[in-house]
Amino acid sequence: MSSASLFRGIIVPLVTPLADRDRLDEPGLKKLLERVIAGGVHGVFLLGSTGEAPSLTEHLKRELVSKAVEIVNRRVKVIVGITDTSLVDSIELAAFAAEERADAIVAAPPPYFPIHQADLRAYVETLAENCELPLFLYNMPSHSKVAFEVPTVRQLLHHPRIAGLKDSSGNMLYFNQIVQLAQERPSFQVFIGPEELLAESVLVGGKGGICGGANLFPELYVELYNAATIGDLASIHRLQHRVLRLASKLYSVGDPPSGYLTGLKCALSCMGICSGRLAEPLRSLTGEKSDAIVQHLQDLGLVDRQATAVRA
Amino acid sequence: MSSASLFRGIIVPLVTPLADRDRLDEPGLKKLLERVIAGGVHGVFLLGSTGEAPSLTEHLKRELVSKAVEIVNRRVKVIVGITDTSLVDSIELAAFAAEERADAIVAAPPPYFPIHQADLRAYVETLAENCELPLFLYNMPSHSKVAFEVPTVRQLLHHPRIAGLKDSSGNMLYFNQIVQLAQERPSFQVFIGPEELLAESVLVGGKGGICGGANLFPELYVELYNAATIGDLASIHRLQHRVLRLASKLYSVGDPPSGYLTGLKCALSCMGICSGRLAEPLRSLTGEKSDAIVQHLQDLGLVDRQATAVRA
Amino acid sequence: MSSASLFRGIIVPLVTPLADRDRLDEPGLKKLLERVIAGGVHGVFLLGSTGEAPSLTEHLKRELVSKAVEIVNRRVKVIVGITDTSLVDSIELAAFAAEERADAIVAAPPPYFPIHQADLRAYVETLAENCELPLFLYNMPSHSKVAFEVPTVRQLLHHPRIAGLKDSSGNMLYFNQIVQLAQERPSFQVFIGPEELLAESVLVGGKGGICGGANLFPELYVELYNAATIGDLASIHRLQHRVLRLASKLYSVGDPPSGYLTGLKCALSCMGICSGRLAEPLRSLTGEKSDAIVQHLQDLGLVDRQATAVRA
Amino acid sequence: MSSASLFRGIIVPLVTPLADRDRLDEPGLKKLLERVIAGGVHGVFLLGSTGEAPSLTEHLKRELVSKAVEIVNRRVKVIVGITDTSLVDSIELAAFAAEERADAIVAAPPPYFPIHQADLRAYVETLAENCELPLFLYNMPSHSKVAFEVPTVRQLLHHPRIAGLKDSSGNMLYFNQIVQLAQERPSFQVFIGPEELLAESVLVGGKGGICGGANLFPELYVELYNAATIGDLASIHRLQHRVLRLASKLYSVGDPPSGYLTGLKCALSCMGICSGRLAEPLRSLTGEKSDAIVQHLQDLGLVDRQATAVRA
Repeated sequence: MSSASLFRGIIVPLVTPLADRDRLDEPGLKKLLERVIAGGVHGVFLLGSTGEAPSLTEHLKRELVSKAVEIVNRRVKVIVGITDTSLVDSIELAAFAAEERADAIVAAPPPYFPIHQADLRAYVETLAENCELPLFLYNMPSHSKVAFEVPTVRQLLHHPRIAGLKDSSGNMLYFNQIVQLAQERPSFQVFIGPEELLAESVLVGGKGGICGGANLFPELYVELYNAATIGDLASIHRLQHRVLRLASKLYSVGDPPSGYLTGLKCALSCMGICSGRLAEPLRSLTGEKSDAIVQHLQDLGLVDRQATAVRA
Repeated sequence: MSSASLFRGIIVPLVTPLADRDRLDEPGLKKLLERVIAGGVHGVFLLGSTGEAPSLTEHLKRELVSKAVEIVNRRVKVIVGITDTSLVDSIELAAFAAEERADAIVAAPPPYFPIHQADLRAYVETLAENCELPLFLYNMPSHSKVAFEVPTVRQLLHHPRIAGLKDSSGNMLYFNQIVQLAQERPSFQVFIGPEELLAESVLVGGKGGICGGANLFPELYVELYNAATIGDLASIHRLQHRVLRLASKLYSVGDPPSGYLTGLKCALSCMGICSGRLAEPLRSLTGEKSDAIVQHLQDLGLVDRQATAVRA
Repeated sequence: MSSASLFRGIIVPLVTPLADRDRLDEPGLKKLLERVIAGGVHGVFLLGSTGEAPSLTEHLKRELVSKAVEIVNRRVKVIVGITDTSLVDSIELAAFAAEERADAIVAAPPPYFPIHQADLRAYVETLAENCELPLFLYNMPSHSKVAFEVPTVRQLLHHPRIAGLKDSSGNMLYFNQIVQLAQERPSFQVFIGPEELLAESVLVGGKGGICGGANLFPELYVELYNAATIGDLASIHRLQHRVLRLASKLYSVGDPPSGYLTGLKCALSCMGICSGRLAEPLRSLTGEKSDAIVQHLQDLGLVDRQATAVRA
Repeated sequence: MSSASLFRGIIVPLVTPLADRDRLDEPGLKKLLERVIAGGVHGVFLLGSTGEAPSLTEHLKRELVSKAVEIVNRRVKVIVGITDTSLVDSIELAAFAAEERADAIVAAPPPYFPIHQADLRAYVETLAENCELPLFLYNMPSHSKVAFEVPTVRQLLHHPRIAGLKDSSGNMLYFNQIVQLAQERPSFQVFIGPEELLAESVLVGGKGGICGGANLFPELYVELYNAATIGDLASIHRLQHRVLRLASKLYSVGDPPSGYLTGLKCALSCMGICSGRLAEPLRSLTGEKSDAIVQHLQDLGLVDRQATAVRA
């Protein structure tokens, strides 16, 4: 992998703006992408969990990839999630991403059958052999059931097509072990999922974060990332406090376990950025819950009180 | 629902015979279907977990449905699994099953996002509104993460398009509660998944079993079901012992948690019924493990010692 | 073990009536024991989870054993739970139970450290060597975290001091496997914990049930057990329905996961049998919840409407 | 609470040296305490999970507290674990700790019954009312089953007798939320359990660590703590690497899930500090596993090659 393909910084796990059950909100997508790029993010990650990829049809996934790559127009990296319960579908989507000139692909373990680690390793090797873009592993046992255990990552560490790992487990014992491992292959890049852990992950050697909140407020995450890379602890504490406040406010309005996603999309809609529609099985916040999101956005200074009043 | 659409007895969760990664083993499918129908089963369930549905592409799923419906030719019921992470894909497959004149469809909760029960209920209602065949709910939290909790089943109990529930949780406390509930609507039919629980489930009021082992040895399960319906305890004990022995032998050769499926397909291949190939992420048993399956089949009297010797 | 020491039937996991935080309700204990013996139960199990053993001090545990053995006066079997996080404390309580002439002891895995099966096996062997009474294993992973896995039970099956196993896992796949195992040693006696599964456990070969509801309504469980031993399916269905109704009413008033115990003790108090006080960390139902228990008891015909009215 | 009672830094969760099943290794205890105090630790925590408290008898626990307080002789803080399934036993041990002039007590949720948060809160309030020393909450759901959820900590935050919280969950999302909460009451002190997370926990606002490895190598943890308090990232990376190496080597020789404790006690024994005996249900490493610990200690520079050779 050439140094040009090294990734770092804030990668936005882009929400998928939906105009209808199976139709893209194109103006929303454009507005969202322009906003995060203007906010300084280093890349976008399409079709992750935040992008509700498993809930989308193949044709909508492809449309999203094509449109997003076109809008981004190489200003920042574009990474495409190819996780699927069907290997053949993953391979075909990876090929499509390569044709569309995305920069990398990401795959979690196939999220249906509970499998053991030997099968997981074989699966990833088969996938890597059949894809041409650099492949990131995605550790997210809360959704995939199966984790990339440390010994499995060790076995896959030197695979030339595997570029790194995104860890959304929230388990920093695990993250630290993977960062230690990665010292044996400096081009293996380790990213953190949960934005609340961005600062500490970079302090202990992570390459950046794939932070959902950056859909809303990209500058905050970029600033925090920058503070962490230079070890500016005072700024870290100040910015970390804002990140935690944003997360604890916006992601707890909707009922768990989907409050993160329902809050995020509702906030984007309230801010006028894109449609707040979710793909089934998730459902939009409405009524009092939607009002609570507006209130929190005002408290966080993310929307103008007056503007919202007019909108209401 | 007319009485003609009532289901009962042994429904085989059919394995999907695969000639190659994305290609059906048609002769195997025919042989397997003829064998289970000859064995007296009351129906076949295509595209369940045993059928590895999540690992298959849409076109292979459709090919399987078409071919199977044609081969079965209304001799027994045909039920089609439509579980998918994408609602749109589920609805489309359900429509296809209806066109092909299948008898019912089955859906587990969409198996990616952990969702709460209110979202699950809304999801099922949307699905039911968009499908025309009778819909069975499929409770299998080990694979779907989310369960159909008892209060949710109570809310869905009288939905005219919902025909019943298949419970593969292995939790008989739950099963008993669902059977009690179903007394309020006699046309709501409750089936058990794990074959080891077939007899007791029928004794406490279940309508039958969706037993993987019936791919291999349909007569045994049909006999056990019949014994349970008339409360013939002596026969139940004798047959139950054989079912438990078959399960404990064949399903423990492959490593957990996939030993059930790898053992089942390997045994079908060793018995010359259909291809033993699995869809990724699962992998076939080979070498000593495959030999162990042959040995167990001989011990169980399911293959002829001499025949196998010649084959080897 | 002589045949005299074989156990079967309904063993009541006795609640521990408490007059105060660390003081026995002696009149309540006497009333409760006389009632369950009159109801036909085959034994009582002191100091189980239902007896809140882990929450009690050593001196209260011993007082309970002495008093209960004296009251029972060999009319039915007395079994004593010795589960403890400390092996030394377990051994000492087992010795005390032997001195007091109890009939058997029961031990779950020590419920603090998550341990592997080899350590569990060694632990049980050490315990068995240091105790004189027949020892029952108690499988209850929801509380002990660690289960007695099937291969471990196989290794312990022929230990001369181990008399059997009580399974409270609710997993009938497991229960069936243990019953199959026990065919190799007929004196190894397998009991079911959850009363909702009593009938089917006996139908598949269990020796009886350790049913909490028998504190309240011993005759019902004895009748159901008797019906199951002779395979009288009509009676089983009728009585099973009553058991399920009792359980679903009384045990769901208090919040999970302690609703079973809080409901049981509240009901015993409302029926005037013994104190409803629980040992910390559990707390008694009060106010509307206590009223709901009274209402359910009336609906179940377990208390007289008029009597309750007067009491109120 | 006066500022004198504020805790910070490295608190060693002391192993309990055992000469026999129910007998203290007194010389070992003395040697161990002198060593960790010489190593600069800020306190010792007796009778935690690392101290195998649940496996010990009451009299041994008391003997340990008395002896340890005497040896420490107020040179560093002494904190005593009072976690027990019995509230009365916890209160009595807390009273004993106060008489012996320990500095604080620590309690996890009572580790048997799965309880809900309202019961947990009531339990802690009862405990706090009945104890005189400052009380730390101990969050360790892997062993207690029940966690101190964030809203519960919020409710207990301003309780005058509650001094802080030790988090051994390994979940930094949780830890960060607790640290944020604690900003509302600066005397509420938050400590981390897993030593691999010491540095980042201090960087984000934790007060220190309760690090098992400090039994073996106290200086290393003290140095790392000091580096983290001043934000010296270069030192942090260097020392963190050593901590991770020590943990990954020594704690993985014994089988999970007890490899941490079996490795720690074996290492202390190999280093000649105290007995390596464990209390049941845990068992000492022997043979090749013990040799592997010696080898790792040599590689880590914690024992002298020659000295070990002579010992062998």
